[in-house]
Amino acid sequence: MRIILDFGGMVTDAVGPRHGLTMKQINAMGGAFKAAHQNIAQRRRAGGLPFYALPHDQKGLKEILDTADRVVKRCEDFVVLGIGGSALGGIALFQALAHPHHNLLPKAKRKGRPRIFFADNIDPEGFSALLELVHPDKTIFNVISKSGGTAETMSQFLVVRNKLVRRLGRKKHAARIIATTDPERGYLRSIAGEEGYETLPIHPGVGGRFSVLSPVGLLPAAVAGIDIAELLAGARNADQACKKENLWKNPAAMNAVLQVLACTLKKKPISVMMPYSDALRDVADWYRQIWAESLGKRLNVNGRVVHIGPTPIKALGATDQHSQLQLYMEGPFDKVVTFLTTGKFRKTVKIPAGFNKMDGVGYLGGHTLNDLMQAEQQATEFALTQARRIHTTISLPEINPFTVGQLLFMLEVQVLYAGGLFEINPLDQPGVEAGKEFTYGMMGRKGFEDRAGLIASKRRGKRPYRIMV
Amino acid sequence: MRIILDFGGMVTDAVGPRHGLTMKQINAMGGAFKAAHQNIAQRRRAGGLPFYALPHDQKGLKEILDTADRVVKRCEDFVVLGIGGSALGGIALFQALAHPHHNLLPKAKRKGRPRIFFADNIDPEGFSALLELVHPDKTIFNVISKSGGTAETMSQFLVVRNKLVRRLGRKKHAARIIATTDPERGYLRSIAGEEGYETLPIHPGVGGRFSVLSPVGLLPAAVAGIDIAELLAGARNADQACKKENLWKNPAAMNAVLQVLACTLKKKPISVMMPYSDALRDVADWYRQIWAESLGKRLNVNGRVVHIGPTPIKALGATDQHSQLQLYMEGPFDKVVTFLTTGKFRKTVKIPAGFNKMDGVGYLGGHTLNDLMQAEQQATEFALTQARRIHTTISLPEINPFTVGQLLFMLEVQVLYAGGLFEINPLDQPGVEAGKEFTYGMMGRKGFEDRAGLIASKRRGKRPYRIMV
Repeated sequence: MRIILDFGGMVTDAVGPRHGLTMKQINAMGGAFKAAHQNIAQRRRAGGLPFYALPHDQKGLKEILDTADRVVKRCEDFVVLGIGGSALGGIALFQALAHPHHNLLPKAKRKGRPRIFFADNIDPEGFSALLELVHPDKTIFNVISKSGGTAETMSQFLVVRNKLVRRLGRKKHAARIIATTDPERGYLRSIAGEEGYETLPIHPGVGGRFSVLSPVGLLPAAVAGIDIAELLAGARNADQACKKENLWKNPAAMNAVLQVLACTLKKKPISVMMPYSDALRDVADWYRQIWAESLGKRLNVNGRVVHIGPTPIKALGATDQHSQLQLYMEGPFDKVVTFLTTGKFRKTVKIPAGFNKMDGVGYLGGHTLNDLMQAEQQATEFALTQARRIHTTISLPEINPFTVGQLLFMLEVQVLYAGGLFEINPLDQPGVEAGKEFTYGMMGRKGFEDRAGLIASKRRGKRPYRIMV
Repeated sequence: MRIILDFGGMVTDAVGPRHGLTMKQINAMGGAFKAAHQNIAQRRRAGGLPFYALPHDQKGLKEILDTADRVVKRCEDFVVLGIGGSALGGIALFQALAHPHHNLLPKAKRKGRPRIFFADNIDPEGFSALLELVHPDKTIFNVISKSGGTAETMSQFLVVRNKLVRRLGRKKHAARIIATTDPERGYLRSIAGEEGYETLPIHPGVGGRFSVLSPVGLLPAAVAGIDIAELLAGARNADQACKKENLWKNPAAMNAVLQVLACTLKKKPISVMMPYSDALRDVADWYRQIWAESLGKRLNVNGRVVHIGPTPIKALGATDQHSQLQLYMEGPFDKVVTFLTTGKFRKTVKIPAGFNKMDGVGYLGGHTLNDLMQAEQQATEFALTQARRIHTTISLPEINPFTVGQLLFMLEVQVLYAGGLFEINPLDQPGVEAGKEFTYGMMGRKGFEDRAGLIASKRRGKRPYRIMV
């Protein structure tokens, strides 16, 4: 069960010297790799990168499994209230490893598991529709926020809590809520204490976008029936390869080097992740967060401000061949594509023969959808190569909890290496504070009144640039 | 009911001269706009742009409505087999204008409408899961392909047809399939004739990505209970504004000018569309196709080959504030953001008071999710302005069939103008042929044997660049 990183599509052999990388260029990153490697190893030893420890937390695993067992017995529906890193990991696991139509299956076919919903937006239409759908007496709500200060999630929580309290009473409502939050600090921890909610901890040093293998991602996955022990085993396995000191044997480091060189040396600021698998679709969305938020940064280089960060894009094969491929093939040379493939799908669908005399249809019969999917991926890869467009492929032998655990962990470590190579801190997100503060101002949060005033003053007298349809 | 394009965030007044546009720069595009305008008007008069006529086709509308009425009486599930332009329009309409959890509602709450599925990929896991879910006797399959040569859709069709024929017999199975295809030519037209399928026509001059207001998008929408007459009325309304000769009164042309200037003059190759509405989420995905496939082109300029085309990105507010905003705020100045907003959501959700003593939670009580969503959009817009990041906003007074019709039509016309300004043909997609031909080769289609050979020969002896996890 080994994932393979194939980067034959990144090198001059394949796409020529203008867009491809030479061995020399890759090896020239050896020093930067070594520095990043040592820095990571050192911080890790000092306990500074606690997400590395998540796959080893057997006590935490047992707690999550026990909680999930109780949840499954006590509800028909399980609703995650969380946004960003509090939702994307769970969504990716659910899409990859649960039945593609889990929520539409009759309960028996779900093996008694509840339906699973991720409420990751505050759209009043979407959120009220969800609350109409689930029965408060038969639902467990998993509120996820490390700080408890996330405006979207805490607003959802207040709505849900009110509904539960009105129906079940203050005391009984508590059994319907599980809080996943900081083990000691923050609003949600205090609220859980006051109200008597069951809780699961998020290590204070694990940021939202690195939390998929913590209770944040694992509880929803376990409730859905996913083998989370295997997931962690896969992550531990990936850790072995992804801590190697030899760049050429370390897939996370090599892929970081290739991505950084694509962005900097080869001037390709756009990084597309294109799974050829419905199941891996939301891995690309999860990756979009960890890649963008970790690497999109402003920094000072010798007193000069520079703005860096490749822009991640999620695509889906074969579907997006009919949407984005024209641009990838003929548009600017500004992209590097990462394919995610699986050697073996969990189902085989035969294409029956039919209309053999029609040359544009008849050839399909006798093949399988599996053949077609694989042929399309290889054809796209080959066509991109011919058009001198750089790309890598990450192949999973098959999609199961172990390989998905490998994949996610490898991509997390890749982000750390890329942060080191870009010489930025991949663990912070200072750029989102301004927007949050303006929101607080407009919502009347104490201490942010000046922000509301600032917006109002700037808006006054603003010349209108408007056209009506 | 008027949509407003607000481009105050694109100009020097807002973001300064380095990233903002001046009146002079915008007006300097007047000549190019005029040329594009005349070209479009002339082709339209000559019948060369038949998508313009779709909103006026009352006979077609009646045929679709009649078909939909019959469909609704005869099935529990309605499955679209289509990919790319044959699916994205229908998906966008369904997401925008049906209940957010349509397929999970009991039938009575769906007003007797069937569940709606779009099978827009050939993943064997996803497709077989769907076929397990729907009962062949109670399902109508809508196969959509203009040429009938789309490998993915025709493969799905062969699978479905076989299943139906085995269950219902050759004769009876025909009642379970509706083909939407070219009125006269192509494989699917011939098959429909042979098998006796009901059909709906796609005008031969309407390409997939401009087909949302044809039976391609309208039949699934009508089956879902969406008022498609209103949708077309909205489109006709938008046509009035979007054919004006005055750039400053023509929102489609102005937005095309702004997008093209952002890409060329201001060197921002990435165009983000970020709806602050779950309902409009898939409008961004639909737009991603029409923008990328229409404008991503290779062309000859005085004997030199150039590669053009902005890269569209879909995002979702407020969710992606917790995923992409860090990059948009602090990353490279390589993006223009288009917000889609609604003045009024179809539901209001109050946030009840609670935990008033906690300053990071208490301020939320007494507001609504609607307030919060609006505050977050405005805060993000303002924060981007402060960070000198250019953006426009397209505001819908509310989301209904009329305004969605306006929006989609305006965006279609915008693509035509942008094609004119870039001096490319926005209606073709030559870049996807190579990949298709390699696929044909690997799948053994007659006449493409050499393509399979080419791949095999290139792969032989290829030096491996592989790392295992």
